[in-house]
This record gives sequence, structure tokens and C-alpha cells, in this order.
Amino acid sequence: MNAEIIAVGTELLLGQILNTNAQFLSVELSNLGIDVYFQTVVGDNQKRLEETLQTALKRADIVILTGGLGPTKDDLTKETIAQVLNLQLKLHQESLDKIKEFFAKMHRVMASNNEKQAFLPEGSIILPNNNGTAPGCIIEKDNNIVIMLPGPPKEMQPMFKEYVYPYLLKKSPYTIYSKVLRIFGIGESSLEEKLIDIFENQSNPTIAPYAKQGEVTLRITAKCESEEVAKGLIAPVEEQIRNRLGIMVYGIEEESLEEVTCKLLMEKNLTLATAESCTGGLLAEKITSTPGISKCFH
Amino acid sequence: MNAEIIAVGTELLLGQILNTNAQFLSVELSNLGIDVYFQTVVGDNQKRLEETLQTALKRADIVILTGGLGPTKDDLTKETIAQVLNLQLKLHQESLDKIKEFFAKMHRVMASNNEKQAFLPEGSIILPNNNGTAPGCIIEKDNNIVIMLPGPPKEMQPMFKEYVYPYLLKKSPYTIYSKVLRIFGIGESSLEEKLIDIFENQSNPTIAPYAKQGEVTLRITAKCESEEVAKGLIAPVEEQIRNRLGIMVYGIEEESLEEVTCKLLMEKNLTLATAESCTGGLLAEKITSTPGISKCFH
Repeated sequence: MNAEIIAVGTELLLGQILNTNAQFLSVELSNLGIDVYFQTVVGDNQKRLEETLQTALKRADIVILTGGLGPTKDDLTKETIAQVLNLQLKLHQESLDKIKEFFAKMHRVMASNNEKQAFLPEGSIILPNNNGTAPGCIIEKDNNIVIMLPGPPKEMQPMFKEYVYPYLLKKSPYTIYSKVLRIFGIGESSLEEKLIDIFENQSNPTIAPYAKQGEVTLRITAKCESEEVAKGLIAPVEEQIRNRLGIMVYGIEEESLEEVTCKLLMEKNLTLATAESCTGGLLAEKITSTPGISKCFH
Repeated sequence: MNAEIIAVGTELLLGQILNTNAQFLSVELSNLGIDVYFQTVVGDNQKRLEETLQTALKRADIVILTGGLGPTKDDLTKETIAQVLNLQLKLHQESLDKIKEFFAKMHRVMASNNEKQAFLPEGSIILPNNNGTAPGCIIEKDNNIVIMLPGPPKEMQPMFKEYVYPYLLKKSPYTIYSKVLRIFGIGESSLEEKLIDIFENQSNPTIAPYAKQGEVTLRITAKCESEEVAKGLIAPVEEQIRNRLGIMVYGIEEESLEEVTCKLLMEKNLTLATAESCTGGLLAEKITSTPGISKCFH
């Protein structure tokens, strides 16, 4: 199964923002065992978006579009999808209620053009937006799956994780299972030197190093029929790496250095105080982002 | 004149890296008055790259490709360009000397596969790489301009600035000039309602709203023969918008809310103290990121 990602927005073509959505989706799809052959960016222009969508439908099983779902006139992704797939847009009352509720919660008045966001292609699977106003949707038509998501990453990412990921997981014949080791205190190239023989013999699982700010991560990924089998393939490789790196492996998955530090403080019932000058509160902010830390950090 | 950007590299399709090249080039092209209608990402796959390049040549005057110029077997951008444009690759002795010199300077031995990088399409304008080994080139063929640049940003960006920008400047008849207004305290849709008549009558300058976290920006863009004329077109529109929105317009260009706040504090010689609970230092950190603020924030 293969997918194509289309990001819609003139602000991308002007270089005002970086296309982080394409990166996020590519990583997620790769984890699902779905190949991405093309990423495209097109502006808020109906004719060019139509052309791009038509091309994508011909060459990809799954087409994921992000952006252009806003309430304003230049947002026309939904209208273009409906036209190309020959579907009507219908008012989805639940979505309208949700949008109204969103504004009420923010103590703001809903503008009338926000109503437009509750009109969705008939027969589609509606994806609620729990972090904004524009709902997304999944459309199954002929041999394609078309997935429409909002543009802002803080709306798009949770919507993908909560609704699209489980949906695609059922469609994909493979399970991709991966484990991330988080490493502090060594650079990417020195890390590679230490692990070069393990890296060179990788096939399943594969090991991918990635240098982030202040740390390096290693993603160990197995592709097979079940999560159980994958875990069994990953475990010995993880052990081998941990034996070489020792305490430099400080955490796994999405754990952060501050989270691990705070967990240790709480476990050992120790308190911590900070006095910051240049960082002006940054360290305190990182520490207080861990739930329960007020026990140790007064 | 319009351009299309094609980034080549499987690492982009896997989401291992962000496509910052497309953003950089989009900003530069927009400053040159050249419209970008599409950005595409394609893997290191000859058939798909060929297809992408063919499509781009049909719909864009200028096609800029980045990446896939490395010495290894999976790098085939140059070979594909030569094939599509029906050009021979010829050894460019000067480039070969430069590559040899590059390795000598680094006290490294040149691998024999680096020689491949000195073969360039016949009749092209060669762009020296002063920060790496792969030279770029500009090819004028029929009604298209094809520009081939290396993938690593630290090689691509200086090559563009030094050689491609002056080349394109001579080709472009326009200047694009834009001004960004930063707005706080109103959502995108309510903003549109307030300015709908101004939005609907836009042509030159154009006005594009963009919702960011906690704020909305308006980009006013004029396209004309000189920056002076552009400024003259933008000024009355800006004034009209400011009259409607009042103090909601808190800043321009890259100014942030914290920066503007701090500037006001310093101007008025006021001091500020924070007592944070949930945000645990986040506000203090934002404030202290402004140079000189220690005068007001003790």
C-alpha cells in the first residue's frame, strides 16, 4: 500500500512556514508500513489543487491532504475534494455543535463563516477536531482512500493519532513496531562508531540514529506479522546497545530528560530548587511541566 | 514567470529530515517576484523522478531540483535530468580539480566514486560548490530553465545566493515586497468579517491572513517594478487595516508579543515581576529572551 501527501497552502509556497506536516505524516506512515512516493505542496488555488489531486488519485492508494479547511474564502480544499470525487457537502450537525461549543468555551462569539466548517462530504467518516474548529474526514471511493486533515500541527497531529492511525492500522498488512532509545552525552558520529558493527548487520529490525537538540535517539524498527514477534526481534538488539552505552541511554519513546529527572526525584523523595539567570525560568518551566512534581519542587 | 521546486531524496519521504530547502527557495523566489505554484518531493527513484520532472517542465518556466547529486549509486538526479533533456554528461575538468582540492584540504583521500560528481550536462552553466563536492548547474533548454543544486542546505544556500540569485534577478521583471502585521486578541474568522470589504477588493497589494498559535498575521504583498512603488501601494492598505483593528495590531514582521511588551516596559522605564504557578517559569523565560530586559525584570 502506498500514500501521497498533499499539503495545501499558499503560505507554504511563499516559504512563510515549513512543511512539518509532511514530515510528521511520513514518519507515521512509515511506521504503519505504508510507502510514501510523493509529497506535494500546492497553493490555495482550485484549478491547481484539482490537478494535483487527480494525479495523486491515479498513482497512490491513499491520498492525505492537510490544510485549507479554515473558515475563510481562500480555504477550498474540502470543496475541491468534493468536486473531484463527485460528492455533495452536507451539514454535519454534530460538528456544528462542537464548533459552537469550542467558541463558547473560549468565551468568544462564533463568526457566521465558521458554519462552513461543519459541511462535510456525504458518506465520509468524520474526524472530530478536539483542538480547533475544522473537522477532518476519511472518504473511501472506488480504489482510493482520501483523508482530509486540518493544517495547524496542533490540530492535525492529535487527529491523526487518535482517529487516522487506528483506521490505517487495520488496512495495513504489516505491523511495524518500533522502540526509541533516548541517549544523552554522546554525539551522533561517536555513537555510530561505538555501534558500527550492530548498524552494519541490521536488516530486521533496522536501527536509525537521529540527532536532536542536545540528544541522539535510536529507533529500532521491526516489520512483521504481529507486535509480539516484533518485540521478540527488538529485545536482543536493545540489550546489545544498552550494554555498550550504559547510562547514556536515559529513556525510551517520548520520555524527556526533564521527565526522567523528575521521576527520579519523586521516587527518591528529594526536593529541588532552581536559581536561574540567563535561562530566566526555562529550567523551572521544564521541571514544572511534569505532573506531580510540585511535591519536590516548591 | 513561475517556478517549481523538486526536492529529491528518500530520507524526505521517510520523514527523517524536514524539507527546509523548499522553504528557503520559496522565500528567495518570492523576493525575486517569481511565483512558486508547486513544491514536490520524490525519492531516489529514476522512473518517478522522470515523471515528476516531465510534469514540472510542462507547467513551470523554471524547475529547481535539490538533492541526489552525491557520489553514491542511489544519487541519480543529474543522470535523470540529462536523460529527460536529452543531454550528454561530460567531464568538467575544473570541477574535478576542485573536488580533488576539497579532499586535499580536509586531509582525506578522494574515493573514486566522487569523480562521478564532476560529470555535468553539456552546455550548462556550471555552479561551483564552495562548501562541498557536488557542483550544481543551470540548463537553458527550449522554453525552460532547469537548475540543479546539491541537497545539503549548507552547500545549497550559498550556491543559490552567490550564483543563482544574480542569474534569476536578470530574468525577473518584478520585485515582490511584503509587510506582515501581527495581530493579537481576535480570531481569524472574526478578523475576516471586520476586513471583508478590504479583502474582497484586493489585487495589488494582496492580503493573506494566517492563524498562528495565539495570534493572527496579515501579509500585505505588492508586486511591481521597484520596492519604492511597492511600499507606496502597501502604506494606504496598512493604514486602513490599522484604523479598523486599533491596538490589536501589536507588531510587524518578525516581532513577537513578548518583544513588543518588553520594548514598551523599557521605553516607559517600568519594572515587571512574575509569580507563576502552572506556567512554572515559561512567562519569565519568554520575557528574559529579550535583550536588555534585565533593566526592567529583576
